[in-house]
Amino acid sequence: MSYKIAFCFSLLLAACAQHQGITQNKLSKTPNIVILFTDDLGYGDLSVYGHPTIHTANLDRMAAEGQKWTNFYVGASVCTPSRAALLTGRLPIRNGMEGAPPNRVLFPDSQRGLPQSEVTIAEQLKKAGYATACVGKWHLGHKEEYLPTSHGFDYYYGIPYSNDMDNVALANIKNYQDYWDFWSSAPERKDINTFNVPIMRNTEVIERPADQHTITKRYTEESIRFMKENKNKPFFVYLAYNLPHVPLFASKEFEGKSKRGLYGDTVEEIDWSAGQIMDWLKAEGLAENTIVVFTSDNGPWLPMGLEGGSAGLLRDGKGTTWEGGMREPCIFWSPGNIKPAIISGIGTTMDLFTTFSQLAGVPVPTDRIVDGVDLSPVLFKGQESPRQDMFYYRGMELYAVRVGSYKAHLITESGYSQPDKTVHNPPLLYNLDEDPSEQYEISAKHPEIIEQIMQVVKEHKAKLVVGEDQLKYREPRK
Amino acid sequence: MSYKIAFCFSLLLAACAQHQGITQNKLSKTPNIVILFTDDLGYGDLSVYGHPTIHTANLDRMAAEGQKWTNFYVGASVCTPSRAALLTGRLPIRNGMEGAPPNRVLFPDSQRGLPQSEVTIAEQLKKAGYATACVGKWHLGHKEEYLPTSHGFDYYYGIPYSNDMDNVALANIKNYQDYWDFWSSAPERKDINTFNVPIMRNTEVIERPADQHTITKRYTEESIRFMKENKNKPFFVYLAYNLPHVPLFASKEFEGKSKRGLYGDTVEEIDWSAGQIMDWLKAEGLAENTIVVFTSDNGPWLPMGLEGGSAGLLRDGKGTTWEGGMREPCIFWSPGNIKPAIISGIGTTMDLFTTFSQLAGVPVPTDRIVDGVDLSPVLFKGQESPRQDMFYYRGMELYAVRVGSYKAHLITESGYSQPDKTVHNPPLLYNLDEDPSEQYEISAKHPEIIEQIMQVVKEHKAKLVVGEDQLKYREPRK
Repeated sequence: MSYKIAFCFSLLLAACAQHQGITQNKLSKTPNIVILFTDDLGYGDLSVYGHPTIHTANLDRMAAEGQKWTNFYVGASVCTPSRAALLTGRLPIRNGMEGAPPNRVLFPDSQRGLPQSEVTIAEQLKKAGYATACVGKWHLGHKEEYLPTSHGFDYYYGIPYSNDMDNVALANIKNYQDYWDFWSSAPERKDINTFNVPIMRNTEVIERPADQHTITKRYTEESIRFMKENKNKPFFVYLAYNLPHVPLFASKEFEGKSKRGLYGDTVEEIDWSAGQIMDWLKAEGLAENTIVVFTSDNGPWLPMGLEGGSAGLLRDGKGTTWEGGMREPCIFWSPGNIKPAIISGIGTTMDLFTTFSQLAGVPVPTDRIVDGVDLSPVLFKGQESPRQDMFYYRGMELYAVRVGSYKAHLITESGYSQPDKTVHNPPLLYNLDEDPSEQYEISAKHPEIIEQIMQVVKEHKAKLVVGEDQLKYREPRK
Repeated sequence: MSYKIAFCFSLLLAACAQHQGITQNKLSKTPNIVILFTDDLGYGDLSVYGHPTIHTANLDRMAAEGQKWTNFYVGASVCTPSRAALLTGRLPIRNGMEGAPPNRVLFPDSQRGLPQSEVTIAEQLKKAGYATACVGKWHLGHKEEYLPTSHGFDYYYGIPYSNDMDNVALANIKNYQDYWDFWSSAPERKDINTFNVPIMRNTEVIERPADQHTITKRYTEESIRFMKENKNKPFFVYLAYNLPHVPLFASKEFEGKSKRGLYGDTVEEIDWSAGQIMDWLKAEGLAENTIVVFTSDNGPWLPMGLEGGSAGLLRDGKGTTWEGGMREPCIFWSPGNIKPAIISGIGTTMDLFTTFSQLAGVPVPTDRIVDGVDLSPVLFKGQESPRQDMFYYRGMELYAVRVGSYKAHLITESGYSQPDKTVHNPPLLYNLDEDPSEQYEISAKHPEIIEQIMQVVKEHKAKLVVGEDQLKYREPRK
């Protein structure tokens, strides 16, 4: 089948799927929804995605009983915009959560956060009577008007930004070298007191610095407690682990457990946590009316060396628009509703907004562009994914676009410290299905595909209204 | 536990395991044995080892029902010596099947093969009354006195060497560049007539050139036919696929099936074949008295580009002593006898000789050094692997040694055409459990481990009797 025909056929499929409505299988009209979202986990860091020494028996089981997606993307390659994409179903370029360097994410001195005008999954599900909790890392604004409780969540417990922030040792950091030296060797990085991050309950700081050794365990307990208290209503739990983002901390039960070192310990503790959630749902008889999805916010932070993860066979990592930066492990689990399968169609975290809204019978907002598509036909019927495209932004700029199996890089730039931003004209072209490692550039062979993708870019840009960058508003330096 | 203590403890475990004898579970005293052995498959090329678009549902199922090993090695990083290691349980440096470049493997003009003095798994199992078949690629000598039927196999069917040999188009190849150009673009590489390789039945050529489109299918049929004819005896089938080694050919049913292109098609056809074997064993009620093991002869042939495979997160590929060259996917399957698990202990293809000999009650030869260890305690009791070391030879030279989780590179050299052989003193050191991608060199931090490994090297070399290189005997050039 030629590319053009395949593309038209896919559009047709997508159109059909939209009109078919949703098969809910044994799910009620308001099934429970749990999102497990890790921080900086790489595509290659679970055993079920190929890691040799990190043992993730619970997530492996979740994949064996559910759908393992192998072309699942996040909306940005760093924390803040990625989380904004997941919660709003929109590319963060639209909602003000993308910024230019050095403000690619929110910091403890940031003055703003996700605008009130944005609609989150939690707000959507509230309309259908859900009890909603955010447990863990927020990173969409730590002032009261931006916290989860101002964005549709009944309850919040967690660290409101990254676990490496409010760093006492790095307060006067002047350059990248000092920064990497700190992360590779400074003994202070192993002390929780170095990171003066708070734990909040709703809008109050209840602990500072957070005892990071026990955060994964406490996030798990808080999530289960919330589900238990709300098991007679539909519930939505957004459990966003702070780990395995540096600094790495594990509980006594997990420290030293993994052959992969402390990084593996933290991943295995998250695996334990996912197992606790699934086991609790099964024990309560709720599993068959619940959808659990596991994924991560962006790829591995490669400059962290052994304290960062692995993108497996994918190229590069966090911060970049190569596949390693934005393609993540993703597992959907709902016993009896989602049949075991490996899905190599395209999906994104933005699709969770649309999929879960439609599942709960809540209309998706029509007064703005929502980028999510409804993945129900894949989840419940094993059909082709209705999604055929993926836009890779880095800050305010569109770096790459995927259409079907082809990805065109308009701009490339690697990790963090290397100043190697390069504009490509014609764009670099890769066939990701055949060449997931982006090794064999084929633009010269396929000018017609470049042309088609540039048409998609043109249409995208014609409709784009850029949200005002909220990340630039920081407290004046003293 | 310190490294030294861990090492001593492991030796103790190994010693205990040797004296405990074998737990056979529900296996009879002479269980059926099937080895599925692919050619040039990379560590990252199965879905269960993390490939995003190659779908290997049967091998994934085999792994889910059996043991998936993540630190399993071959005896050499190219075909001939790797196969010699598997069949004899000995490092090929001992048995004449290692040679210096350009004779790293046997060629159609080679005059010799695996010496008669070597004892193969097939010869071992014959002593216990097994019916034995070799189906597929042999590559240990194509003259009658070296063929499978001269090495303990009752039956042989297959191509006696690599499927890219007897290459009409490359007959006058003068340099590497022409060679790579041929493989990356020459249309002749897609024509079976370019490769004048024979199919043999026992000692007779029955087809030439082989119709390579159907070889995976025919190998499968031959294997099942042999098992069917011998199902009232114990049987041993060594099914060595010629694919996914280049040139790539798939049957009509599989060509175009995989999103990964022709390479993926051939792997998916092998996956189908493995499924046929398992299904037949189950249907006949033989599965619970059979052990099936799936692995490959060496890592992916990276210079072949998209017609070669992927080592996933491992470094480099075929021909090298980096992990990508010698660590392979490996799955053991025996329903009711081997419990599902992921094993990150060390194993090698040489251990199959010892494990299967002991399972069948046939003593391992004591008149020579056998490198294999008995993996039964891992397979049937889930104990720690008794193997703690791995020797990485490249041709006649020892390039690297692994002891526990540490690997020391005495010499490094990449793929094929780059002249970058480098001797390291002190050796490069990596912790493979923490750093499977061999990215973070730590010799300066651990001189004591280098010292321990060099002691192991010294002991190894003290006992080493190098077998005379048989690969150098080639017909005089006309």
